[in-house]
Amino acid sequence: MSTGENLDFFFKPESIALIGASPNPEKLSHTILESLRDIGFGGKIYLVNPGYREIEGLKCYASVGEIEDKVDIAVFAVPAVAVLEILRGHVENIKGAVIVSSGFRETGDEGKRMESELKSLLREKNIRAIGPNCLGIYDTVSKVDTFFIGSDKIERPPRDGISVLTQSGSFAAMIMDELANEGMGVARIISYGNKADIDENDCLEFLAKDEATKVAVLYIESVEDGRKFLDVASRCTEKKPVVALKVGKRETGAKAASSHTGSVSGMYEAYEAAFRKTGIIEVAGYEELKDACKVLGSYSPVSGKRVLIITDGGGIGISIADACEDAGLEVPGLPPEAVSKLKGSLPAFAAVRNPMDLTGNVRDEHYLAALREAFGDEYDIAIVSLLWGPPLLSEGVAEKIKEFAENSGKPVIICSPGGKFPRKMTLAFTANGIPVFFSPESAVRAAAVLCGRKK
Amino acid sequence: MSTGENLDFFFKPESIALIGASPNPEKLSHTILESLRDIGFGGKIYLVNPGYREIEGLKCYASVGEIEDKVDIAVFAVPAVAVLEILRGHVENIKGAVIVSSGFRETGDEGKRMESELKSLLREKNIRAIGPNCLGIYDTVSKVDTFFIGSDKIERPPRDGISVLTQSGSFAAMIMDELANEGMGVARIISYGNKADIDENDCLEFLAKDEATKVAVLYIESVEDGRKFLDVASRCTEKKPVVALKVGKRETGAKAASSHTGSVSGMYEAYEAAFRKTGIIEVAGYEELKDACKVLGSYSPVSGKRVLIITDGGGIGISIADACEDAGLEVPGLPPEAVSKLKGSLPAFAAVRNPMDLTGNVRDEHYLAALREAFGDEYDIAIVSLLWGPPLLSEGVAEKIKEFAENSGKPVIICSPGGKFPRKMTLAFTANGIPVFFSPESAVRAAAVLCGRKK
Repeated sequence: MSTGENLDFFFKPESIALIGASPNPEKLSHTILESLRDIGFGGKIYLVNPGYREIEGLKCYASVGEIEDKVDIAVFAVPAVAVLEILRGHVENIKGAVIVSSGFRETGDEGKRMESELKSLLREKNIRAIGPNCLGIYDTVSKVDTFFIGSDKIERPPRDGISVLTQSGSFAAMIMDELANEGMGVARIISYGNKADIDENDCLEFLAKDEATKVAVLYIESVEDGRKFLDVASRCTEKKPVVALKVGKRETGAKAASSHTGSVSGMYEAYEAAFRKTGIIEVAGYEELKDACKVLGSYSPVSGKRVLIITDGGGIGISIADACEDAGLEVPGLPPEAVSKLKGSLPAFAAVRNPMDLTGNVRDEHYLAALREAFGDEYDIAIVSLLWGPPLLSEGVAEKIKEFAENSGKPVIICSPGGKFPRKMTLAFTANGIPVFFSPESAVRAAAVLCGRKK
Repeated sequence: MSTGENLDFFFKPESIALIGASPNPEKLSHTILESLRDIGFGGKIYLVNPGYREIEGLKCYASVGEIEDKVDIAVFAVPAVAVLEILRGHVENIKGAVIVSSGFRETGDEGKRMESELKSLLREKNIRAIGPNCLGIYDTVSKVDTFFIGSDKIERPPRDGISVLTQSGSFAAMIMDELANEGMGVARIISYGNKADIDENDCLEFLAKDEATKVAVLYIESVEDGRKFLDVASRCTEKKPVVALKVGKRETGAKAASSHTGSVSGMYEAYEAAFRKTGIIEVAGYEELKDACKVLGSYSPVSGKRVLIITDGGGIGISIADACEDAGLEVPGLPPEAVSKLKGSLPAFAAVRNPMDLTGNVRDEHYLAALREAFGDEYDIAIVSLLWGPPLLSEGVAEKIKEFAENSGKPVIICSPGGKFPRKMTLAFTANGIPVFFSPESAVRAAAVLCGRKK
């Protein structure tokens, strides 16, 4: 159904109408108004509800047709039946719609009929639409937030370069809350639900040319227009890394996906092939997707798969090496020159090998020395693990490692498992834009993503 | 070298001597004294250091031989050379030793020679020893804590039923900090390092008959006496679940393990076979080990592998179903009777299937209704996912689910990804002894552990 038409106005709207606006704090529409104000939307906000003249100091229109202005985005926060009724009326000034309402195709035969009518109405009235059955747009660039779950429940991430496209609204909420909680930002999150009009292809086309988007992340239940997907995805991967998680891979999940947004999941193998063909980095599940967001927010993919491991505890180095080998990454030994250079400059009992164990006597500068001497052309990625037990280790190590990573242009991934103290110490890395992972497997998943290798 | 002798005195000591005691807060021995006091050790503490007459109000002995009492545990917190020197002297009153010092076998030829001499001295003086190159004992039952990393860095978990045996000290610190941070407890953690005397077999033998230990968890780099391991492990698994992580599986990791505690890792396949034969639940890595600790702290293994999935968001249900199938677990459809019983009592658009989606209109009682009607003989484990977006969902759901789990005797695993809000809401589950996991994969790893299936 996609027309390939320019959808830019969704991502730099000058006016937003909130249909179903309400002064009742328990209504979704009230949360959406709060979200729009909190993010600081700079354009015009029009409220629409025939039951009110004014809500929270803003004029309330009886219908969207009464607004004497074009409406770039009309957010429909009314029941499914009311969505259709409103669209049957005067809506000529609406350019785009975000229909968050559920009760369409995902609910059975009557819902399917209603979604059919919705499609016809949108075509007839020349309105482009995101949804129904979605959260809509969270956009740190244009400062739009139609997510109807408050920031007390789902934290809003600051601006950064990752954009996320997702059929599932709960997935959108989950990943944004997790990223925000770990101090990571996003560019735009688009939750498109049942995709009665706009689908992943339209959105991906926009992200391909969107300068604010450095990395595109896709949560896919289904793709209907496979041919177009191959084309759009290939063009996008030429410009920036694209990561995809296909859910509903096998029978049970596939059936659930079908019931969820009323879509057909299709053969997983076809998706796998499409990802390979277009250069999309496929991730195996939610954990790997999150790891991918974190690592690609800081580093670009690399061409090899040789990992250098530096730790302050022997046990964790071995676990990281095991996880690398499980993931198909290589852990080649240290070159003899590096060994001889390092022998004198590291703590007495350090294991000068790969994985390297700097022991409990490590100081900040030993990490830097190890990276300088060992992280040469023989390795593509370094995983540096800090357990923070060593008494002479300080937060200052983050600054040193950041400088090394910047000057060398090579990715350094931090692995720092544990509880409160490690989390506190690693804030210095996050603040310096160096991604931190909290288990050996998680750090290795991130490395595997940079290597473009499916686990 | 193990004699099979009774080692109980290590786990109910009446007296502990701290060799190398110091008033200097930067010394390991100072942290150990603090740890012993903080945990509330009720027996006698003797300090030993010829350089002091008194430390922190406690008499300081010039040598351990001067103490006119038997010493159940002498903690050696002195350099490797000093350990040998002291053992050559009058140490007849020492029954057991915890030697935290590094600088032995793991450091090369001279270290190997010193460890040889250490072994001879221990035999000659009839002293049983844990270590060297270890953290020793953290014991919530006998209230002993020889870990030389302060609780400001590594949080101490409260008492519960999990005991952990580990060659790696950093692993011991990592897992205890993580468990404590998530509100979980332990019985005893034994970090035995180079195992010059006491090894995993001795410890496992103790844990097998230890009533305080409900679950035994093993982090293994190497086992030297395989025949004895098969025997001891088989006897332990008859009494309680035993979980093992073998690290240094393949070449790189194996070499590192050898350098780490000076041990030979051996063929991974032999370990795999031993675990299978003895009924040990093998876990694939650190994440799965942590998941195993959390789930076995609350539930016993089950005999089937059929998982019921109940969620408040369609997307996550599909991800959990995918992860189940990846892990070899089954997600059978709902029995028709359950479907017809539930159709009337769940929210209007709920997907009454497996995975079940209770939607954003879910209330606490819907989760209970779903469990009551659906979690019958057709399923072995339920994974209940809460994303906390639904406005009518409350912390009260934890109490309801706990009652169901207690009455039914069937394991209910909570999956609740996200940031601050979900973490806060799930505290009600943790407080009720219901384990909480923060990703679909993590919840499924826990379920797989209960099914005794290696991922």
